[in-house]
Amino acid sequence: MKKLINSVEQVINEQISGLAHAHPSLRVNDEPLYVVRADAPVAKKVALISGGGSGHEPMHAGFVGKGMLDGACPGEIFTSPTPDQMYECGLAVDSGEGVLLIIKNYTGDVLNFETAVELLHGEGNKVASILVDDDVAVKDSLYTAGRRGVANTVLIEKLLGAAAEQGADLDKLVELGHKLNNHGHSFGVALAACTVPAAGKPSFTLADNEMEFGVGIHGEPGIERRTFTNLNDTVDQMFNTLIENGDYKRTIRVWDREAGDWLEQEQHKTALKAGDKVIALVNNLGSVPLSELYGVFGRLQHNCQQFGIEIERNLVGSYCTSLDMQGVSITLLKVDEQDLALFDYAATTPALHW
Amino acid sequence: MKKLINSVEQVINEQISGLAHAHPSLRVNDEPLYVVRADAPVAKKVALISGGGSGHEPMHAGFVGKGMLDGACPGEIFTSPTPDQMYECGLAVDSGEGVLLIIKNYTGDVLNFETAVELLHGEGNKVASILVDDDVAVKDSLYTAGRRGVANTVLIEKLLGAAAEQGADLDKLVELGHKLNNHGHSFGVALAACTVPAAGKPSFTLADNEMEFGVGIHGEPGIERRTFTNLNDTVDQMFNTLIENGDYKRTIRVWDREAGDWLEQEQHKTALKAGDKVIALVNNLGSVPLSELYGVFGRLQHNCQQFGIEIERNLVGSYCTSLDMQGVSITLLKVDEQDLALFDYAATTPALHW
Repeated sequence: MKKLINSVEQVINEQISGLAHAHPSLRVNDEPLYVVRADAPVAKKVALISGGGSGHEPMHAGFVGKGMLDGACPGEIFTSPTPDQMYECGLAVDSGEGVLLIIKNYTGDVLNFETAVELLHGEGNKVASILVDDDVAVKDSLYTAGRRGVANTVLIEKLLGAAAEQGADLDKLVELGHKLNNHGHSFGVALAACTVPAAGKPSFTLADNEMEFGVGIHGEPGIERRTFTNLNDTVDQMFNTLIENGDYKRTIRVWDREAGDWLEQEQHKTALKAGDKVIALVNNLGSVPLSELYGVFGRLQHNCQQFGIEIERNLVGSYCTSLDMQGVSITLLKVDEQDLALFDYAATTPALHW
Repeated sequence: MKKLINSVEQVINEQISGLAHAHPSLRVNDEPLYVVRADAPVAKKVALISGGGSGHEPMHAGFVGKGMLDGACPGEIFTSPTPDQMYECGLAVDSGEGVLLIIKNYTGDVLNFETAVELLHGEGNKVASILVDDDVAVKDSLYTAGRRGVANTVLIEKLLGAAAEQGADLDKLVELGHKLNNHGHSFGVALAACTVPAAGKPSFTLADNEMEFGVGIHGEPGIERRTFTNLNDTVDQMFNTLIENGDYKRTIRVWDREAGDWLEQEQHKTALKAGDKVIALVNNLGSVPLSELYGVFGRLQHNCQQFGIEIERNLVGSYCTSLDMQGVSITLLKVDEQDLALFDYAATTPALHW
């Protein structure tokens, strides 16, 4: 293993320190570790925080800034942050309008974030959470009950961030968050695995004609290994699987502020259909050249056009990565005009800026 | 070799087609191939064009837009575009205020771009060129007489683009271009080589404890192979070499519009010294995770501070790549207040946007 790091033990600290030096718009707290907007708490605005294992950069710390997140909590690589990270981060960003926690659906994250919700509630803060589970590849996985939360998280953070900046209250943001989660679907493939520093070797090995189909963002397996042939064939298979598996009902836990307890709530994801308008995200899982991502986008555009889906906006680049994995994911988020206005709204973060 | 492409023959076309679909702000011409701002030619503004072999994305097409380039010409992978690409692109963007060609110093590029300058002059267009040769690693290489043009090209395109947008005329842009080139220094290392699709295998092989020190952006060798130990040691060696080899005199060819011919002109690069203010660019050569780039930036910041150089602005990310090479380059561009204002000026391109 050759990586531009000093040691496995120091890796998160040295990288977050570099991030902080590069972006004076961020403020880093070391103990417990979290990253917030330097101007936090921002008055008259619900605060948005997220977090998760490191190794997915720029997610989430790269999305902290005006128009997106108020704070982010990096865990160790591929490991959930602890409840006290999320709790302290929540206290640091709450201006009194409340805090929304954006949780990717992994067992560890859900447990720790829910504890943070309870702690913040106990401290008298208005608090709520939404769950992101956009990966159509698996129902359950090594890391999850239910579908995994992957790259749609980026789009949700963008749109909710814009809505919060425009004055949406906590209830409104929760409602919008559920809607955006139910309207978003992702699917990933890998041609080669990532190498976690502490492991020192790739998390799986593929033959020259194999791909991991439906791969996660921690090197965990997906649906199956398939034969890798070429770009078009791969994107076609991804697109078809994403469309065919879009419909999905499940029960999630929603925080009831009045009762101070969790409620079970049925949520329904609906499959994309002809006539839908979407934001498309072609996301680098790590080491794929940008030029190849544009090849993927071109084929995805072709598939959408054939199917009758219109791509209204797009992002093509590295947003929700898995260290140095050679792979790509596609995300299609069904949107209306209001969602598009939120996407277009200004954001000034290290990784998204317009 | 596993790449998300359909075939070696189609690769440039399918990728540029995807780029065009993703960014309606661009217009692609197929024969000869070039990419221009959809609103080109822009009245009352000198047009800036660049180009070079593909494989360095987002450079250059990703920098076409308001505040940077008016046009870019992609060659085949690691191969110069032809004179007619640059010539036709120049005709397409010239509003009457003239065209500036930004040339990275590679033998093929220089020959072809200079021919395009002569063709545009012959057609009655005001035209000039500047040469970028920022790579301190080598005096001559497989691809060059003199130093190579690498990532400082991105900063030069940013600053000249802002100046052009603000109304600087062609002579003023040439003068500023020479200054920015003389004030910029870059140095790269690779831990693993890139794979050119047509070759089908990595362009060199390194042992687990080796790095290619002073690597170029086409997989060509640098100064030497050195032992790779860790992040800090690597960045320290890069920084020291960059500082020690900054001073450099050479003769370049400058287009004399009056005479309609090339003039020889001595140019002098000066080494960075304590007290200088710089823009720092930590550039991914391909497959290095963003988190590791922040580690590099953190150490570079430390080195600059120790030496007495102040980093006023920074870019950390993938700007001037070499396909999937596992490597990183650092660029330090000495700047004054006027340069910083140009850096801060709005740009709306696919890859740089603020």
